[in-house]
Amino acid sequence: MIIVLRPESTPEQFDHVLERIKELGLKAHVSKGELRTIIGVIGDEDKLQVQPLSAIPGVEQVLPILKPFKLASRELRRQDTVVEVGAGVSGVKAVRIGGGALVMIAGPCAVEGRDVMESIAPKVKAAGANLLRGGAFKPRTSPYSFQGLGEEGLKVLRDVGHGHGLPVVTEVMNTRQVEMVHRYADMFQIGARNMQNFDLLKEVGQAKKPVLLKRGMSATVKDLLMSAEYILSEGNPDVVLCERGVRSFEDSTRNMLDMSAVPNVKGQSHLPIIVDPSHATGRPDLIPSMAKAAVAAGADGVHVEVHSCPEKALSDGPQALLPAQYAELVRDLRKLAELLGKTF
Amino acid sequence: MIIVLRPESTPEQFDHVLERIKELGLKAHVSKGELRTIIGVIGDEDKLQVQPLSAIPGVEQVLPILKPFKLASRELRRQDTVVEVGAGVSGVKAVRIGGGALVMIAGPCAVEGRDVMESIAPKVKAAGANLLRGGAFKPRTSPYSFQGLGEEGLKVLRDVGHGHGLPVVTEVMNTRQVEMVHRYADMFQIGARNMQNFDLLKEVGQAKKPVLLKRGMSATVKDLLMSAEYILSEGNPDVVLCERGVRSFEDSTRNMLDMSAVPNVKGQSHLPIIVDPSHATGRPDLIPSMAKAAVAAGADGVHVEVHSCPEKALSDGPQALLPAQYAELVRDLRKLAELLGKTF
Amino acid sequence: MIIVLRPESTPEQFDHVLERIKELGLKAHVSKGELRTIIGVIGDEDKLQVQPLSAIPGVEQVLPILKPFKLASRELRRQDTVVEVGAGVSGVKAVRIGGGALVMIAGPCAVEGRDVMESIAPKVKAAGANLLRGGAFKPRTSPYSFQGLGEEGLKVLRDVGHGHGLPVVTEVMNTRQVEMVHRYADMFQIGARNMQNFDLLKEVGQAKKPVLLKRGMSATVKDLLMSAEYILSEGNPDVVLCERGVRSFEDSTRNMLDMSAVPNVKGQSHLPIIVDPSHATGRPDLIPSMAKAAVAAGADGVHVEVHSCPEKALSDGPQALLPAQYAELVRDLRKLAELLGKTF
Amino acid sequence: MIIVLRPESTPEQFDHVLERIKELGLKAHVSKGELRTIIGVIGDEDKLQVQPLSAIPGVEQVLPILKPFKLASRELRRQDTVVEVGAGVSGVKAVRIGGGALVMIAGPCAVEGRDVMESIAPKVKAAGANLLRGGAFKPRTSPYSFQGLGEEGLKVLRDVGHGHGLPVVTEVMNTRQVEMVHRYADMFQIGARNMQNFDLLKEVGQAKKPVLLKRGMSATVKDLLMSAEYILSEGNPDVVLCERGVRSFEDSTRNMLDMSAVPNVKGQSHLPIIVDPSHATGRPDLIPSMAKAAVAAGADGVHVEVHSCPEKALSDGPQALLPAQYAELVRDLRKLAELLGKTF
Repeated sequence: MIIVLRPESTPEQFDHVLERIKELGLKAHVSKGELRTIIGVIGDEDKLQVQPLSAIPGVEQVLPILKPFKLASRELRRQDTVVEVGAGVSGVKAVRIGGGALVMIAGPCAVEGRDVMESIAPKVKAAGANLLRGGAFKPRTSPYSFQGLGEEGLKVLRDVGHGHGLPVVTEVMNTRQVEMVHRYADMFQIGARNMQNFDLLKEVGQAKKPVLLKRGMSATVKDLLMSAEYILSEGNPDVVLCERGVRSFEDSTRNMLDMSAVPNVKGQSHLPIIVDPSHATGRPDLIPSMAKAAVAAGADGVHVEVHSCPEKALSDGPQALLPAQYAELVRDLRKLAELLGKTF
Repeated sequence: MIIVLRPESTPEQFDHVLERIKELGLKAHVSKGELRTIIGVIGDEDKLQVQPLSAIPGVEQVLPILKPFKLASRELRRQDTVVEVGAGVSGVKAVRIGGGALVMIAGPCAVEGRDVMESIAPKVKAAGANLLRGGAFKPRTSPYSFQGLGEEGLKVLRDVGHGHGLPVVTEVMNTRQVEMVHRYADMFQIGARNMQNFDLLKEVGQAKKPVLLKRGMSATVKDLLMSAEYILSEGNPDVVLCERGVRSFEDSTRNMLDMSAVPNVKGQSHLPIIVDPSHATGRPDLIPSMAKAAVAAGADGVHVEVHSCPEKALSDGPQALLPAQYAELVRDLRKLAELLGKTF
Repeated sequence: MIIVLRPESTPEQFDHVLERIKELGLKAHVSKGELRTIIGVIGDEDKLQVQPLSAIPGVEQVLPILKPFKLASRELRRQDTVVEVGAGVSGVKAVRIGGGALVMIAGPCAVEGRDVMESIAPKVKAAGANLLRGGAFKPRTSPYSFQGLGEEGLKVLRDVGHGHGLPVVTEVMNTRQVEMVHRYADMFQIGARNMQNFDLLKEVGQAKKPVLLKRGMSATVKDLLMSAEYILSEGNPDVVLCERGVRSFEDSTRNMLDMSAVPNVKGQSHLPIIVDPSHATGRPDLIPSMAKAAVAAGADGVHVEVHSCPEKALSDGPQALLPAQYAELVRDLRKLAELLGKTF
Repeated sequence: MIIVLRPESTPEQFDHVLERIKELGLKAHVSKGELRTIIGVIGDEDKLQVQPLSAIPGVEQVLPILKPFKLASRELRRQDTVVEVGAGVSGVKAVRIGGGALVMIAGPCAVEGRDVMESIAPKVKAAGANLLRGGAFKPRTSPYSFQGLGEEGLKVLRDVGHGHGLPVVTEVMNTRQVEMVHRYADMFQIGARNMQNFDLLKEVGQAKKPVLLKRGMSATVKDLLMSAEYILSEGNPDVVLCERGVRSFEDSTRNMLDMSAVPNVKGQSHLPIIVDPSHATGRPDLIPSMAKAAVAAGADGVHVEVHSCPEKALSDGPQALLPAQYAELVRDLRKLAELLGKTF
């Protein structure tokens, strides 16, 4: 950590800062320049993270040096983490995510009923999807919109998915739901709106199932990794990150897909990261090219909403691909994956 | 709702759209122009809100006309809502918020212990604060930062606040905490990170205590009002909104304070709205002028973090005012309020 | 400047960095920690600003310490700059901006003709405006929109303004126009889209008339001050800054007014700063409260678009106040200014 | 265009709106609903674009239906535009951009001198670049940074580029420079900061050389297309767009690369669009994956900064690739292009 003093700081203020550093059991290295005095602080940065040194009179800036995440960090673990979903579930083909193995997650936004799900699951499987999605609890901006089928939806998702040999992933919105979702799902999804619902992160961190953690709408890449750190620090190592676009001034897409988050995360962290072009763009005409770009950028998978009848979907219909469009997309992604030496 | 067809849409697609509108029991008004066909849909817009008409082939745009919130809307209720906090609590002076009555919320970011709280509460009260704040559950970006004292913190906050005649407000982060926070606090706070934690909104909507709802970091004013609608639609009419800055590219302040949200909300909604310049700017040097600007803009109160020793605060110390600075600020705000015909 | 080396940097890389620092005639202070080596560099930071030290292998971060602007800086000049507009122009009442003197700039978005201008100028003057605005060169998003009257517009603006004793300000968009605008206007305006048109900044920096510099749509406060530095460094000390909103995700206002820019600039710079709530919000219903908030926040003036018939205005009509609304606003601002010990 | 009246609008206001529509020679289609009256306006939308109908009392919203650009629109011209650069220049191999032909633009940020340029040009050519870049006029945030060599830089760029058979592209910042840059360059570049310097757009629109138009830092895709429309409407059809990242809250990259702009533009416009991952990310570690993603997303080329000694570069060194890194990248891009049926 580096502390920069104001040009007009007094010798008393300088002494006070040094004293506080000593109190914490840390060492100070002082550089006095013509215009500014700079103090490098060496030692356990954890102690400093909770210290509001910038509130001390005479201090102009406090600059952290170390990254605030540890368990998620590439410095701790050089090798890519590979997350396995659905292992040991009877009748289900487990999926590996990371380390060269791509995941193809597909399914409707919401679970609307057994029939609709049965009309979608075999088609996305035939197209090449290896993990089925569908929401039973839906975070909706309006209280008057469809809120999901709840436990009934979880049952449908599991039955249909496992019936076709596919593991399933679904959103958990609330600490009260963790246990129930755990009973049915092979992977938890934490949605963008809950990326900083820290109690929820802690509870899925204590559960023993993989977690798909979506980036918040105004979260930086560092924020995303800090949220992953919450899960990891509770003992759950199986976290897959998901870039799904952030809020911006651009009004012709639902969000702005920050594609550079893929290599940005991979440089700093060993965790896998996938891309969700459906929520990122909100436009079926843009999804295929963004899915291809994601794989080319090094993503460990793609998450796409697919619906057999988008115009009757109870949630987010306008951004879903038709099964046939999805099949064509997966064909293209397969060729790309081969070229890049990846598999799914 | 208005539906615009693509220039190349076919007569079959046009018929298909009309049929879907009829199915919903609504009437269509068709305008055929040289380049586009436009269909106005008249009737109960609720039915349309869940219909993904833009997923129908041939449809270019779907433009909603009515505001998606109802109970929060000024159209429903012309008169300003006045929220009362702490009414009927023995020894406590109840506070009115809205309709010309300003609230002055002050206190430390986190409840750190009885002694610290006792060193702050009488000072902010003497300065003119009429509602005491302090977090017992702290949403922190890092799992390694101080997470709050939990129930012990709630007890301290209530005891110290009520001991000085002040009602208290504190954050609830999790549905599991609603009951406990309800036992101690006079007002719930929903933090920015939980503005779209819809299950939590529903549960405080069922509780019978006022709610301070903070704007999310990338929430639009409409999103904020929709989240208020969740609380109102569960039967709790006592919602106070809080502008606390949004994420932006500006890197010299913690967030960007969207001051225009104050009159923007007031034009559309009858709910009171206050401003939190502490979180919005993260800089004590900017807090006083932003508090004054908020009152001049028409805000129904100001929320300021005050700490007796910011450099030892366990959370957000660098953005707290000292009690003496706060007292000076309230003196200025009082003159401004008088000029504008408001009271606190 | 502080240089942080990567944990895995080699001794050769360390030596190479030290060598480059020496080549520049600067001194290095080295702090070796357990995890990182930190090098403080003391001396003339100008030399370092053009040095891409972060491109040296082994370097993780380069953190600048000093502010990159000098002439605009409060450290250079403690006292507020007061800019005088229209001094020595016959028949005109000069206006002082800064140091407690507020400027009230008003007028139509575009100069549309002598009659329209004559229907506006006496009314805004009677309301209390002391500087008349109007665009003769209009930066329009569409090439098919009205582009302004050019020199004819400049003539009308000057004749009408000076005829009523008001100095005038108008936008210059292009280096080729500097000379012509200089002939007619008492103050140059640099619009948001040209805030980083550096050649234009240099040319108005060589001209001997005050400059109203508007903040760019995605400019930070530091960027704004750096653009002011361009003008100052060419010898023109008379720069007035203008906050006019920045681009954001909020879609119910034209831009997001960053009110905290007012005290933020004042803490770092001696230059006056005013606020333009017309462009910032794009909504007449929000302009009066934002103008009041600006004065309460410490702004040195307010810039408001006023039109006698907004619905027939050739540019930005929907955001203009009517003369009567403007008169009411100025009455309110006058009371606020009195309370704050300011005059206009 | 659609006009929505306020619920409380009066019959007089309704009549007034109809009258204004008639005055413009347009036809109105009225739909009266329970809560709102909606007026569809059919006819030449150009007339309406300059009419501030939303300023009429009683009007709640005015919704445009047609896209405001015409010449840039895919509706006007279905076929991809192919821009040719360097055609007819002796010794130079002309480059085609668009319609399946990719352009590989490479070179240093600034032209620093003949020797440096000679150390870069043959290497990027050998790597596969087919268009050489380098700035002679540099838009720098600080007036104290290197501002470019001016005409001498243009000469060096042309001599070295043409000497190696490569056409050259360079930035023009100012209307006064258009003629001079035209003498030396094969393609004009309009930088992000000048995307809405409309006078400059008009002048390069009158020149008879292709233009590389970079997206502004807070420009929407529609804004970018409107700026292209300025150039096209002056008679120059040879415009190539460039996505180079926009400003956002993410602080670990220089800008946020909006990859979806590529298919977003291609759906609406016939103009080619390339991607500049150097400015978009500012980080050499992210450039290769973003270049690959761009090609997979359908971009018509990639613009990359390459420098033989980034740590001594006079501008933007930290974001440049070394020639060997660039050669490796082009090898990867070539395989990708082949897979996608494109050539360069």
